[in-house]
Amino acid sequence: MFGRLAGFPQAIEDRLGRAQRVIFTDAHLAEAYAEQLQAFCPDVLEVVPAGEATKCFESVIAACSRLAAGAIERSAVVIVFGGGVVGDFGGFVASIYMRGLPLVQIPTSLVAMVDSSLGGKVGINLPTAKNLVGSFYPARVILCDPSLLRSLPYSEFANGMAEAVKHALLDSQEHWDWLKALEPRPTEWPEASLEQLVARSSQVKQNIIEQDPYERSIRAHLNFGHTLGHAVEAVSGGMSGTGLSHGQAVSIGLVASLKLSQKLGRLRHSGLTEEVAGVLRGWSLPTSISPELTWPAVERAMRNDKKVKAGRLRFVLLSQPGEAEIVDNVPGELVEQAFEEMRCEL
Amino acid sequence: MFGRLAGFPQAIEDRLGRAQRVIFTDAHLAEAYAEQLQAFCPDVLEVVPAGEATKCFESVIAACSRLAAGAIERSAVVIVFGGGVVGDFGGFVASIYMRGLPLVQIPTSLVAMVDSSLGGKVGINLPTAKNLVGSFYPARVILCDPSLLRSLPYSEFANGMAEAVKHALLDSQEHWDWLKALEPRPTEWPEASLEQLVARSSQVKQNIIEQDPYERSIRAHLNFGHTLGHAVEAVSGGMSGTGLSHGQAVSIGLVASLKLSQKLGRLRHSGLTEEVAGVLRGWSLPTSISPELTWPAVERAMRNDKKVKAGRLRFVLLSQPGEAEIVDNVPGELVEQAFEEMRCEL
Repeated sequence: MFGRLAGFPQAIEDRLGRAQRVIFTDAHLAEAYAEQLQAFCPDVLEVVPAGEATKCFESVIAACSRLAAGAIERSAVVIVFGGGVVGDFGGFVASIYMRGLPLVQIPTSLVAMVDSSLGGKVGINLPTAKNLVGSFYPARVILCDPSLLRSLPYSEFANGMAEAVKHALLDSQEHWDWLKALEPRPTEWPEASLEQLVARSSQVKQNIIEQDPYERSIRAHLNFGHTLGHAVEAVSGGMSGTGLSHGQAVSIGLVASLKLSQKLGRLRHSGLTEEVAGVLRGWSLPTSISPELTWPAVERAMRNDKKVKAGRLRFVLLSQPGEAEIVDNVPGELVEQAFEEMRCEL
Repeated sequence: MFGRLAGFPQAIEDRLGRAQRVIFTDAHLAEAYAEQLQAFCPDVLEVVPAGEATKCFESVIAACSRLAAGAIERSAVVIVFGGGVVGDFGGFVASIYMRGLPLVQIPTSLVAMVDSSLGGKVGINLPTAKNLVGSFYPARVILCDPSLLRSLPYSEFANGMAEAVKHALLDSQEHWDWLKALEPRPTEWPEASLEQLVARSSQVKQNIIEQDPYERSIRAHLNFGHTLGHAVEAVSGGMSGTGLSHGQAVSIGLVASLKLSQKLGRLRHSGLTEEVAGVLRGWSLPTSISPELTWPAVERAMRNDKKVKAGRLRFVLLSQPGEAEIVDNVPGELVEQAFEEMRCEL
């Protein structure tokens, strides 16, 4: 549901009744939106440090203990106010505290609005692997205020654009043509463009997960760009916040997947790879691979990923915008080739 | 599905295909059934200490890390071989590792066969509250070999009988008449009686959870005897294995709930309370309350329970076998009366 933050406390009461409220947010947002958050009258306001490091078991234990200490009951509502990290973490706690409390997502970042708040994937990391522990736990209500994006740092907006590019490419030529024409200066956009971006992009994901909520088939298309993306993110130290962001990693992964599609003779128009790379660079997203990222480390990380089945490399490949396919058993040498070609400028 | 343990490895392959296998079991069972467990060809055999203390976050972290280290993939099958504790714990790990692996329950205790393996409640404890963290995660397959009960210690069999008594009372006069006539010497029973007990009792729970998998209405009937039961279990130190067992606590809780039903003028035949208490005592289950259990401590524990809604005491009360009702706002004084009357022999 689209709306304004100021109206969301009432919207929650309308949808879920009067109940205890737990809010999860991060330290930055808790400060920036202190007043607006108080309007929700939270029984527990759980503020976690911003950043991927929050997504660990230790934070889960601490949060569950605080909810118990606050006498939070089974009928309480959990409201997650934040980006992907807060959503993954708070959503996971909501999914396991008392075997699950009703969840409201209020995404504040572009990634969260078009991607992570949708589809119910919540979870935390093990030191060895990202999102290795989690649940499928769809939000009962998603409340989206695109005007919150006005205060998003440019780099975070760009991270969301990596997923928006992915959605456009999975969707259709028309969607891709529309997206690639957007000026990469969102602060100058009229409100309607922000809303349209979020609405179009989130709809792509929504359509896919409605067909396949548990990722048994077509939902895996959403992993386009993510096989290699997750691996370079992990190896670059993205998990501890020092390396590539998720969006940056996906940007690299998208280009690599297109190059791989080309190598396997699937890509209908070879110019698409360069076109996509150009758009990503327009958003200041990386499309080349830095020297510290070595192939053996990245390959190992890929084979550790939970998308791997029986040790085989599985990629989502594209023949043209709107036509994706899941391909198992992609030869490691071809992936290595695509990867190494990205050392130089594309 | 009923069958013999020796046939279960094949049954799993028939139902879920060839896949990696993770087995959760406890130290006693790992020793007693070492050979039979090897026949499952486990990729990871996770042996946890017997007892409620296993159900903690620390064990979950350790188990998830070992699955990751063992390169357990999303397509793997988790087999839980054990009683309630192993089932709750292993089932919970299965529900969150990689957002859920298919789960096979092989219950080895009577409690597990007639109760805890059914209905998908899995979870762990916080130091402050039992089963406060968990999921609804039904097993894909439940494989039941009643002959495993032959080696169950008497006290553990009796613990299962507390739940079987509950199921019979929730079900019908006929079921209760049949159950109360069973001789409390199960080692002398023919095989068919064991099977009939498990089949009848588990069917009661199965019917209820099919109607209401997420405990929004009638499933709460299964909490008959558990409002006070959980509280006396917690206060007696049952969580650390030193006080009342779950079955013993439920035995006390069932008698208290019947007394309460009587006090509230709901019980049709007042003789039922003594009849039920007699059957429970026949199984060496307690029906009176020891002096160390003080009312204030028990009341506090009840109000901490996740079944509590807005601080009100909710009980399942019986008018006759087969007729239960959920009653909110039961006056604390009446519960205290019933509780204190159980100080002396009923």
